[in-house]
Amino acid sequence: MQFELTKEYLSEIREASAASDENRLIGLFNEVHAADIAEIINELTTEEAKTVLHFLEPDRASDTITHLDEEDRKDLLNAYTSVEIAENFVENLETDDAADLIQELSEERREEVIAQIDDIDQASQIVDLLNYEEGTAGAIMGKEMVSVYEHLSVTESILELRKQAEDIENVYTVYVTDEKDRLKGRLALKKMLVAPTSAKIKDVYVSDIHWVKAGDTTEEVASIMEKYDLVALPVVDNLHRLIGRITIDDVVDVIKEEADRDYQMASGISEDVESTDSVWVLTRARLPWLILGLIGGIFGARVIGLYEADIQLYPEMAFFIPLVAAMGGNVGVQSSAIIVQGLANNTMGMSGILPRLLKEFSVALLNATACAIIVLGYNIIFGDSLNLAYTVSLALLAVIVIAALFGTLIPLTLDKYKIDPALATGPFITTVNDILGLFIYFMIGRLMYGM
Amino acid sequence: MQFELTKEYLSEIREASAASDENRLIGLFNEVHAADIAEIINELTTEEAKTVLHFLEPDRASDTITHLDEEDRKDLLNAYTSVEIAENFVENLETDDAADLIQELSEERREEVIAQIDDIDQASQIVDLLNYEEGTAGAIMGKEMVSVYEHLSVTESILELRKQAEDIENVYTVYVTDEKDRLKGRLALKKMLVAPTSAKIKDVYVSDIHWVKAGDTTEEVASIMEKYDLVALPVVDNLHRLIGRITIDDVVDVIKEEADRDYQMASGISEDVESTDSVWVLTRARLPWLILGLIGGIFGARVIGLYEADIQLYPEMAFFIPLVAAMGGNVGVQSSAIIVQGLANNTMGMSGILPRLLKEFSVALLNATACAIIVLGYNIIFGDSLNLAYTVSLALLAVIVIAALFGTLIPLTLDKYKIDPALATGPFITTVNDILGLFIYFMIGRLMYGM
Repeated sequence: MQFELTKEYLSEIREASAASDENRLIGLFNEVHAADIAEIINELTTEEAKTVLHFLEPDRASDTITHLDEEDRKDLLNAYTSVEIAENFVENLETDDAADLIQELSEERREEVIAQIDDIDQASQIVDLLNYEEGTAGAIMGKEMVSVYEHLSVTESILELRKQAEDIENVYTVYVTDEKDRLKGRLALKKMLVAPTSAKIKDVYVSDIHWVKAGDTTEEVASIMEKYDLVALPVVDNLHRLIGRITIDDVVDVIKEEADRDYQMASGISEDVESTDSVWVLTRARLPWLILGLIGGIFGARVIGLYEADIQLYPEMAFFIPLVAAMGGNVGVQSSAIIVQGLANNTMGMSGILPRLLKEFSVALLNATACAIIVLGYNIIFGDSLNLAYTVSLALLAVIVIAALFGTLIPLTLDKYKIDPALATGPFITTVNDILGLFIYFMIGRLMYGM
Repeated sequence: MQFELTKEYLSEIREASAASDENRLIGLFNEVHAADIAEIINELTTEEAKTVLHFLEPDRASDTITHLDEEDRKDLLNAYTSVEIAENFVENLETDDAADLIQELSEERREEVIAQIDDIDQASQIVDLLNYEEGTAGAIMGKEMVSVYEHLSVTESILELRKQAEDIENVYTVYVTDEKDRLKGRLALKKMLVAPTSAKIKDVYVSDIHWVKAGDTTEEVASIMEKYDLVALPVVDNLHRLIGRITIDDVVDVIKEEADRDYQMASGISEDVESTDSVWVLTRARLPWLILGLIGGIFGARVIGLYEADIQLYPEMAFFIPLVAAMGGNVGVQSSAIIVQGLANNTMGMSGILPRLLKEFSVALLNATACAIIVLGYNIIFGDSLNLAYTVSLALLAVIVIAALFGTLIPLTLDKYKIDPALATGPFITTVNDILGLFIYFMIGRLMYGM
C-alpha cells in the first residue's frame, strides 16, 4: 500500500493545476500524505506547485513543505513573499519544523518572516530555537510537549494534558517537573490511562529517564535514542530545566544522514549529493577527490620513474604494477571501513590501539599469505620469470600487511584528534597505499633481480 | 549523561561477580539500563556474565540478552539449558524479541525451548512469528498491541486498554478493527484522553492510516515508517486482519543495518562484521573481495603483457599505469555510489536510464576535462615526452568518461534484475575499470607513438 507516482497521475495533476480546477485537485490529493505530495511537487514547475499548495488545507500544505529536499524547498520559497511564508506555512508548523524552515532563508528574509508571525508565543519559541547551533540537540528539538508538576493528581494531569496537547500532533509521554521547571521524570500516556485517577503523579512517574542538554551533538542524541530504543527524548538547559523534546522521526533523519555521509566519503563524494542534483553540484562534489587521486597518480609516476632503467631491462616488472597498487588500496579501504564503522556505531569495545593493530596484523597476514600463494602459483605456472614470481608475491605480502596497518592507524589517529575518521577512507587511503605499494614493489624487485 | 564503561567499574563488577556478592552487584547495576549491561556483559567471561544475569531482575536480565550482538548472544545462550532459556529469558520478553532469540538457536534447541514455555498463548504466538521468513514484516512484528472494536465507546475502550495493555511496555496508539478483526484505523492515546468519554470509537478514530502485509520486506517497512514519520505500523494478513505491529526501534535497526551493509559492500567486506569479531570471521569477510581484486590484477598483468615490447621501447609508458587505473576505479566508485544511494533512499526521481546516463556523461566530461588539463600541464612542464603527455591526458579523458558510464549502468542493470546494486560498488567496479583503463591507455599510446 505504498504510494506510487505514475505518469498518468502526474499529468492529471498538471492539467488540473493549469486549469486551477480546485475540486479536481482536492479529489486528486484526497488521502494523499504530505510526504507523497512533496514527491509530486518535485516534478512540478514552481507555478504548478504554488497552485497545488494553494488548494490544499493549510496544515497539509505546510507539512508538504517540510518534506521537500532542502534545495527544492529553497527554490520554492523564493516564489513566496515573507508574509505568505509566515501565514501559509510557518504558522501551521510545529516549532522545530518552523525553525528549520526559517533557518534556511537568507538572514534578511528570516527577520521579515519572524516579524510576520501572528502568534507571539510561537514567534518567541522559534527565535529561541534559532539560537542553537546547527548539529546540536537544541537545533532539532521542538517546544511542543506536555509537562505537569509532580504534585498534581492523575485527574488534574489529564486536564492539563487536554489544555496543553490540543495542537500537538504526537504525544507519547508526559514530562514531570518540579515548581522550578526542572525535569524530574516522565509518565507514559498509557500509565495515565490505567493508573487510579486519584493517584498523585509523584507516586506513579518514572524518575530514571534519559535526557540530553541543548548543547549536546545530534550524534549523541541519535546514539542515545538508538541504544535505549526511545521515541522521544527530553532536552534540558544548564539548570536542568525542561526546554524541549526531540522525537524519533527527526533522529531517524540524523542517523540516515550520518550513514549516508560516511558512505559518500568512502566513495569519494564530498558533499551530500543526490542523483537528481544539477550537473554542476555533482561535479563540484566529485572533482576534489579526483584531483587528490590525480596528485597521487603523479607521485606514483615519479616513483616508477625512479626505476625507469629497471623497467627497460625487465619490462615484465610493469605487468604487476596495477595489481600491487590496487591490492594495497583495497586492503586499506577494508581496514579503515571497519574502524570508521566501529567508531560510528560505538562497537569498538574497550581494547586500545596496540591490541587492535595486532589483530589487524593477524587478519592481514592471513589474507596476504592466501593472496601471495595464489599469485605465486599463477606466476610459476604461467609466467616465465621466477624472479618476477617471487618479487610479486613478496611485494604483495608486504603491501597487504602495511596497507592494513595504515588503514587502521590513520582513522584511529584522526579520531583521536577529533577529525572525522571517515575522511581517511576511500580515495585518500587508496592513494597513499598506491604510492607506498609501488615503492615496496620496486625495492623488492631490485633485491630479487640483484640490481 | 550517557553511560560510560570504565575499567574501574568493570573490575568492581568482576570482583563482585567472583564473590557472588548479590548486594554489591545489585548496587553496581542500580539504574543501569539493559543496553549498558549488555555492553558490560560483552567484556565478561561466560561465568561472570551468568552470575551477573542471575542476580538481575528477570525483566532486566532478559532485556540485556536482547541487546547483545547476535554472536555474543549465541555464545552466552550455549551456557544455558533449554529450560533456563525459556524460564529465565523467553517468558519475560515481548513476542518479537522472544521469537528473534529462539530463531537464532539450533533447530533442536528451538523446539525444546518452545516446549518449556509455560504460557500457552505466548508459546503459540511465538510459533506463529517463527513462520515468517527472515527479512519480512512478519518476522520483525510483535503481537503486543491494543485493539478495540469500532462500535465501543471511549470509556469501554479505556477499560479494554487496561486489560490488554497490562504487560505491554510501550503503547502509542490503539488499533481499531471490525468484528472480523479487519483493520479499520487507529486512535492515538492522546485522543482517548481528550475525547468525550461517551463518544463512540467509530466517530473519533482515524481511518486513513498506513499498514503493511506480513510478507512485505523490512526495507519496505523501513521506507514507509521513515517517509511518513511513524513510530508504529500495523501488520495485516491477506484478509486484512490485524495480526501484529512493528515499532520504530526495530526499524531503526533495519535502517542502520541496511546502510552499514551498503557501506561494507562498497569497502569490500562481504559479511556484517565488527572490529570486535574474531580474526577468522574478519578474514573470511575480506578475502573473497581481495581474491576478486587479485584476479583483476592478473588480467591487468596480461593486458600490459600484450604491450611488453612497447614498454621496452618507451618505458615511460609504465609511469602512468597506476594513475590511469586508479582514476578509472575512483570515478567508477563515485558513479555507482550515487546510484546505489539513490536506489536505497528512493530519491531517483522519475527520469529513465537514458537521461541519467546523459547527465552522468556531462558530469564525467567536466571532471575528465579538468583532470586531463592538470595532467597535461604537469607532463608538458615536468615530463620530457610530448607523446606521453598527450597519451596520458587522452587516456584519462576516455577512462573517466567510460568508467562513469559503467559505474552508472552496472548498478542500474543489477537493480533491474532484482540483484542488490550495492554488489557493483567497491572492488568489483574498481577491478573492471582498472582493466578497461589499461586497455584504453595502451591503445591510445600506440596511436600516439605511431607504433
